[in-house]
Amino acid sequence: MRKVNVGLLGFGTVGAGVVKILIEDRELVSSRAGVDIFLKAVADIDIESDRGISLDKGILIPDAYNIIDDPEIDIIVELIGGEGVAKEFILKAIANGKQVITANKALLAAHGNDIFRKAAEKGVDIAFEASVGGCMPIIKTLREALVGNRILSMTGILNGTCNYILTKLTNEGSAFEDALKDAQEKGFAEADPTLDIEGIDTAHKLAVLNAIAYGTDINFDDIYIEGITKITPMDIAFAAEFGYRIKLLAISKETNGKIEARVHPTMIPEGNLLAGVNGSLNAITVSGDAVEDILLYGRGAGRMPTASAVISDVVDLARILSGTKGRISTISNQQSEGQKVSILPMDNILTNYYIRFSAQDKPGVLSKISGILGDHKISIKSVHQKGRKEKGPVPIVMLTHQAKEADVKKALAEIDSLDIIISASMLIRIENGAAE
Amino acid sequence: MRKVNVGLLGFGTVGAGVVKILIEDRELVSSRAGVDIFLKAVADIDIESDRGISLDKGILIPDAYNIIDDPEIDIIVELIGGEGVAKEFILKAIANGKQVITANKALLAAHGNDIFRKAAEKGVDIAFEASVGGCMPIIKTLREALVGNRILSMTGILNGTCNYILTKLTNEGSAFEDALKDAQEKGFAEADPTLDIEGIDTAHKLAVLNAIAYGTDINFDDIYIEGITKITPMDIAFAAEFGYRIKLLAISKETNGKIEARVHPTMIPEGNLLAGVNGSLNAITVSGDAVEDILLYGRGAGRMPTASAVISDVVDLARILSGTKGRISTISNQQSEGQKVSILPMDNILTNYYIRFSAQDKPGVLSKISGILGDHKISIKSVHQKGRKEKGPVPIVMLTHQAKEADVKKALAEIDSLDIIISASMLIRIENGAAE
Repeated sequence: MRKVNVGLLGFGTVGAGVVKILIEDRELVSSRAGVDIFLKAVADIDIESDRGISLDKGILIPDAYNIIDDPEIDIIVELIGGEGVAKEFILKAIANGKQVITANKALLAAHGNDIFRKAAEKGVDIAFEASVGGCMPIIKTLREALVGNRILSMTGILNGTCNYILTKLTNEGSAFEDALKDAQEKGFAEADPTLDIEGIDTAHKLAVLNAIAYGTDINFDDIYIEGITKITPMDIAFAAEFGYRIKLLAISKETNGKIEARVHPTMIPEGNLLAGVNGSLNAITVSGDAVEDILLYGRGAGRMPTASAVISDVVDLARILSGTKGRISTISNQQSEGQKVSILPMDNILTNYYIRFSAQDKPGVLSKISGILGDHKISIKSVHQKGRKEKGPVPIVMLTHQAKEADVKKALAEIDSLDIIISASMLIRIENGAAE
Repeated sequence: MRKVNVGLLGFGTVGAGVVKILIEDRELVSSRAGVDIFLKAVADIDIESDRGISLDKGILIPDAYNIIDDPEIDIIVELIGGEGVAKEFILKAIANGKQVITANKALLAAHGNDIFRKAAEKGVDIAFEASVGGCMPIIKTLREALVGNRILSMTGILNGTCNYILTKLTNEGSAFEDALKDAQEKGFAEADPTLDIEGIDTAHKLAVLNAIAYGTDINFDDIYIEGITKITPMDIAFAAEFGYRIKLLAISKETNGKIEARVHPTMIPEGNLLAGVNGSLNAITVSGDAVEDILLYGRGAGRMPTASAVISDVVDLARILSGTKGRISTISNQQSEGQKVSILPMDNILTNYYIRFSAQDKPGVLSKISGILGDHKISIKSVHQKGRKEKGPVPIVMLTHQAKEADVKKALAEIDSLDIIISASMLIRIENGAAE
């Protein structure tokens, strides 16, 4: 297996996440990639603080140029942020013929055209999946999955701070200043929140997306930007009255060969999927001439979600560098090789249940049913029985706590064989899961 | 630019979509791919019917083997479906060393292990993005975007027919049989709907996803399957009473090295994003150890959405075959080269507006404001004025029809300078857009 050496610049929040995956999951990621991906060095001005991940001696160094100029390093990951030293480092890495990965939307928005041009001249790749939407693979989706589409429009919630604040205004009727303070206390907003709440960060991301989607230059300065600071509880309440939610949206549309590109608080119908994206989450709808609308949703920030996007770029570039033929193996290497996982028999699963019994309307029915459920260790969460309207079967509905499928099946078979039961019971499983 | 020749087997609904993109957008797709992608031949037993796309003479032929055995053809796209002749064709294509693309989940569920093994032996790729979730790039996302994650669980709405029917049951209180009939009339269900409504198609897809996500074999026979035919309006109503929606879900979870894999009607909280996925649309939530939850949403079937997924596979394989270095160009080639699109000035956009005026509570205020809006060609859709509670400013809210930003700005400047106006008007743009 060919080895690819990675050098990381910036050992902050996201950097530490990248290090964690590259060290703890090196075998998994390398086996999926078909390339041995090795973290050779990490540079940060702070080489003392504990980030909760132990690096071998000598890996963490203070001088970025020791990495950028190391001829053995193939891929440079820039996670410093900002427009200062990060730009210098990236341009030097390109000049040295390295592949470059960055999550730096501010830099791309300001200097992306220059950086892309220099990379093209040098024949190296710049990858920046983590610069927009955190773990949502929006760059890969636009570029690869939608390669057969003309992009017609994009509509996104791309800033978790603003969405957190607007959600709080909506759900709790907070005033803007209070919601901002709460966001700062919870770590969803910076001490200086200007870039986020004024819509600038969102516009940085839209500038990057527009280039990928429509082939514009990076046109940050031409994007209309309006933040969320003027939104009042009164406007939120009016919006609700009309069936709308207010979200800070990045909107772009191709119209007659020109691109509308704007960032502003927007009222959208409450039935729109984006209206249901709450808290610090991100989402984006892309409209293409073939796909109609697709939507991606996920965490737009945070250590591990953003690191996941960086790793996806690392693997893509490592595979290109190593000249790997074919695609990532069809079968995941999540399990050790040769140790294929198998499917758990349905009888062994645990979940919650809705059960509707069709029983005669007689005294003692409920106690009979619940007795049998109890015998099978099925704990009832609630019972719902409608008053009788007319002679005939009465639906008795029970919601259970978590129970084992095999137990539920046995209990139901027993209950359904009672002569007080009129027709087979209806069982529907309940999942209270994710993505709320 | 290297040329890659594509041969298509099956000129049905999706096949026609693929042909449309490969012919009408050949230049766009090829320029993005960096490879000249040429549709050399299409085989179908029906070479007479009009599919609305004109093929050059000799391209459409009746004998698939003329394509499979053509040494000039690099990529075979199988869009015949079913488990019969499609399997023969795919195995022969692999034996001939072709790269293969298929949308055939039934075939992969039944014979995927065999097909993947043979392809690996021969060193060719099998691509099947279109086999699950239509245009949602779920395979690419699992394999590439989430390459740095251990997959913990997947929860998906993967069958548009079932989701259409359940949506109808929920929104209209229809009985199952009526909703099915309606789905058939509207083309969302087949004449024989068994594969869909019994959950089998969903399980085919889950079997494919499990292999990609966890490294199981294709274990279709071990997946628990329960369809939607027994769901009654009464259960839908009870679900709503408890704050749930009923969806046919494909669910898998890794638990202690085993995989839960099941397809059944499921109650999910109405606040869950999947609960808001209605009609014939598909969506899937994937939970990974780094990303937490991400969600993809889009059309799971249909000519162009499915063709879009096929084209994404064509481009991926064409790039591998041609040994293209680097990734798809950073800047889209949506526009002709050298003809970069620019951003439309904000003044020129058209949208709908919410405007809140803070005015003195005097007679004539409304007529004054609406007069100025009229002067600027802004048409009012509705006016909302709360009764006065106390002395002081009264919010007057107006929703406009579509208007031009420049006109709205001019009108507001004029209105805000009136002495009946107490503080600056609040303007929020309204988008009634997509993804509802």
